[in-house]
Amino acid sequence: MFDLESYLDSKRKQINTHLHKILQNTSNSSRLVKAMHYSLMAGGKRLRPVLCLAAAEVVGSQTKDALRAACALEMIHTYSLIHDDLPAMDNDNVRRGKPTCHIAFDEASAVLAGDALLTLAFQMLSAVEISNGGQASKWLRVINQIASAVGYRGMIEGQMRDIASENSVLSLKELEELHALKTGALIEASVYSGAILGGDSAEQIDQLGIYAKNIGLAFQIKDDILNVEGDPALLGKAVGTDKTRQKNTYPFLMGLEKSRSFAEELVIRALQAVESFDGRADPLRAIANYIVQRNR
Amino acid sequence: MFDLESYLDSKRKQINTHLHKILQNTSNSSRLVKAMHYSLMAGGKRLRPVLCLAAAEVVGSQTKDALRAACALEMIHTYSLIHDDLPAMDNDNVRRGKPTCHIAFDEASAVLAGDALLTLAFQMLSAVEISNGGQASKWLRVINQIASAVGYRGMIEGQMRDIASENSVLSLKELEELHALKTGALIEASVYSGAILGGDSAEQIDQLGIYAKNIGLAFQIKDDILNVEGDPALLGKAVGTDKTRQKNTYPFLMGLEKSRSFAEELVIRALQAVESFDGRADPLRAIANYIVQRNR
Repeated sequence: MFDLESYLDSKRKQINTHLHKILQNTSNSSRLVKAMHYSLMAGGKRLRPVLCLAAAEVVGSQTKDALRAACALEMIHTYSLIHDDLPAMDNDNVRRGKPTCHIAFDEASAVLAGDALLTLAFQMLSAVEISNGGQASKWLRVINQIASAVGYRGMIEGQMRDIASENSVLSLKELEELHALKTGALIEASVYSGAILGGDSAEQIDQLGIYAKNIGLAFQIKDDILNVEGDPALLGKAVGTDKTRQKNTYPFLMGLEKSRSFAEELVIRALQAVESFDGRADPLRAIANYIVQRNR
Repeated sequence: MFDLESYLDSKRKQINTHLHKILQNTSNSSRLVKAMHYSLMAGGKRLRPVLCLAAAEVVGSQTKDALRAACALEMIHTYSLIHDDLPAMDNDNVRRGKPTCHIAFDEASAVLAGDALLTLAFQMLSAVEISNGGQASKWLRVINQIASAVGYRGMIEGQMRDIASENSVLSLKELEELHALKTGALIEASVYSGAILGGDSAEQIDQLGIYAKNIGLAFQIKDDILNVEGDPALLGKAVGTDKTRQKNTYPFLMGLEKSRSFAEELVIRALQAVESFDGRADPLRAIANYIVQRNR
């Protein structure tokens, strides 16, 4: 029986150690580094980097390469949270149980800390000792995959639509598209980049893509559900905020019960996509289940 | 006699055409694309991309590769302007003679348009058809060079210090360091990346580095001078703002006259660095002179 809890623990430790090493925060550090470090080490679930490592394990074992990409993905995720929390955007004061970056520091520092984490991600992804040309091409592919996923046709467009859709009612199709952009794209890119660095075969990567698409949407639906019935103490952020802001969510559009069963259906589809994989895909399987069962 | 005016004209046309092609703004475009396009095509001097192309010409001739990098550099420059202009930062309403992005659109759109331009730059830099491994390594080097220059130990740290230094008086050394980070790093990276893609030799690249360092600082000093005595109509932005904000500038710290002669001295140093280069360095020479002679 695969023990997800200890798997997640060990991966998170690896990721946190590496993140800490990259962005050393000493008493001499600049205010910028302190702000970056503050948000990066605020105790996230590390879902995206764990997915990257788990996908790499399915197809090979170059953990060192994958770990670098994993940390870059977490930096990008953190940057997006810092900017989304800004007063001009979602205006959130609490994140991961702590004051958001612009509250703990100030708005200018938060904008710049976000910018700097995004930039540092690409700096890391390109700072590789290249032992052969094939390896260099691989990294370029990963950079391109990630930049496309989180750019103007991906995550950022998702955030634009999310803001624009407050005070209007979306169709289910529009909501699904919004989430595919805002949350799904980076989750998919996490799985893909792990697979590329691990040493993918074309067929496996297609299956991993289907897996990622389904868990990405399931993850967002579960987030919506937790915003209705979650425990703020466990979540580290306020609940009920989607309703107050009249956000379009799955519970709002299809009800809580249907949202739950839809999320479960998506997980089944994700599991089917990796059905033919061997035991090395057990972490991915367990993560898919965890996504709908989690309470934080 | 080298004709800088027509050289700049032709390069700017090339750059603008390519930028336009990358970021097509149609009537169907999203608000995000419109905001990105608005700031990107607001008529900048295109100094950084021109420097990239000119540096590539000195050492070789792969204009197609350099053009891609040139456009990425201009995107990064534009993103930095959009974010610097935000209310939480410099709170500027006019840029390049037009309302700034957050005035023309709104603050959330401006934050996201900046994020998206930064991300698109890295997407472009990694979207290369790789014909051989050596080429891939080259692009990774360029990405790393640029990301380092504009990151938390480069441009972004410069902007942090710029904000922090309002209402306090810096030493000349501190001001030089601030400018080296805030403006110099991206100008240097523009020259370097052109040289790397053009096919650098180690010695040439060192000399180009000295050239870039000197014109980078000269450029900033001239900017400071123009903020005192420039014509707002030509500049496309207000003058006298540094004084109102009690910004640390060269004219403030050493006086107008000394600032002028210091900038000229830096240009002489830049010219000396490329003295041994052949006629292909004429554009770089002319640009160095232009930097202190310009009135916009």
